[in-house]
Amino acid sequence: MGYVQANVVILPYRYAFDFFLFCHRNPKPCPVLEVLAPGQYEIDSFASGADIRTDVPRYNVFRHGDLKDTRKDIQELWQDDFVTFFLGCSFTFEDALIKTHIPVRHIEEGKNVPMYITNIPCRDGGIFRGPLIVTMRPIPLEKVTRAVQITARYPFVHGSPVHIGSPEKIGIKDLSGPDFGEAVKVKQGETPVFWACGVTPQAALLNAKPDICITHTPGHMFVSDMLNEELATS
Amino acid sequence: MGYVQANVVILPYRYAFDFFLFCHRNPKPCPVLEVLAPGQYEIDSFASGADIRTDVPRYNVFRHGDLKDTRKDIQELWQDDFVTFFLGCSFTFEDALIKTHIPVRHIEEGKNVPMYITNIPCRDGGIFRGPLIVTMRPIPLEKVTRAVQITARYPFVHGSPVHIGSPEKIGIKDLSGPDFGEAVKVKQGETPVFWACGVTPQAALLNAKPDICITHTPGHMFVSDMLNEELATS
Repeated sequence: MGYVQANVVILPYRYAFDFFLFCHRNPKPCPVLEVLAPGQYEIDSFASGADIRTDVPRYNVFRHGDLKDTRKDIQELWQDDFVTFFLGCSFTFEDALIKTHIPVRHIEEGKNVPMYITNIPCRDGGIFRGPLIVTMRPIPLEKVTRAVQITARYPFVHGSPVHIGSPEKIGIKDLSGPDFGEAVKVKQGETPVFWACGVTPQAALLNAKPDICITHTPGHMFVSDMLNEELATS
Repeated sequence: MGYVQANVVILPYRYAFDFFLFCHRNPKPCPVLEVLAPGQYEIDSFASGADIRTDVPRYNVFRHGDLKDTRKDIQELWQDDFVTFFLGCSFTFEDALIKTHIPVRHIEEGKNVPMYITNIPCRDGGIFRGPLIVTMRPIPLEKVTRAVQITARYPFVHGSPVHIGSPEKIGIKDLSGPDFGEAVKVKQGETPVFWACGVTPQAALLNAKPDICITHTPGHMFVSDMLNEELATS
């Protein structure tokens, strides 16, 4: 608890520039915490001494966009041209919200955060493209401003909300039917607040059907040595 | 005045991932405002309708790290694999400092900002490496905190200072002998404040001796349609 967790994407070098471009052009859903050099598996920065081939709790292996394998070690699959991207994960800002007494409903309800595919296109990055996918947290009206301020401090973990208040304006017809995760209760006096979601790059990635890519298994993120608070900008 | 100016680096695709990595790993000296796709010369984002082959006021053409040509148009030199990077330039934050009555000495004295090579290494990005180069502005002691706050709002144009107060700690022996630019007067009651400088990526670039690269000519930056204030994070 308290340490930065990261989503992991491992790709052959030939896809790496395009993916880097996609992330840079869509920093809210795809905040890049760190990138390793081609072939580099020992981490010398935010989790010094870690080995990306063994130190993610669980890996998903995709071939041509299809999940083919889930494993706890990718040493056998490692290629000299693999490039590893670490992307920020909203766990960091949820920690900050909770510490300032802003409720995080799906945690209260013991559920996965509700996620929705919006009508907002991401900017293309070479072969990578797709819609912005968002998470929703119902926030008491009197705490919305504070929730914006708190999450804006963390641009490397999705940052400030992408939308506040009118799901239909971003193409969400029914809050009770999320595309991923589970619906949560929006109470009276609360407004739905939407943040960019880390599933966005995952969807763009699988859509592009690279012959191989490896990610963390959902819920099994890479844990760094960096404290959440070290990511705050102000 | 008031619009974001950008440093420009144009490189063949084979160098682009490494340069992107170098910039990402050294965000203070190399803040990436925008990257165009390989071969893309029409800008569809922060200067919509501009053509990178003709709309930089003046270009420097380097071959194997040596300046070979200065021209006002690179249409004849354009290659389908060219990738263009736009990097933030400190003009934006100097505008913000001046607006809040923080003096910018080299502007007062009508000089180029003094620049110094430090003993702080940048993080490597593939073939790109080198020391951090900084600019120095003398700031009245009672305004140093405010200068940090103001420039911290602009992470895309070098952001907050990298060092305050002790030039010798970062390998600068003599403030009156800058490595580039011109020395400026540090008055009594002022402290030297150092910010990361856009010459850092330029030096790393030329050091790597790519067979071709094209940059803006110093003082002839690309002018975007984005207002300086649009870059502020808070």
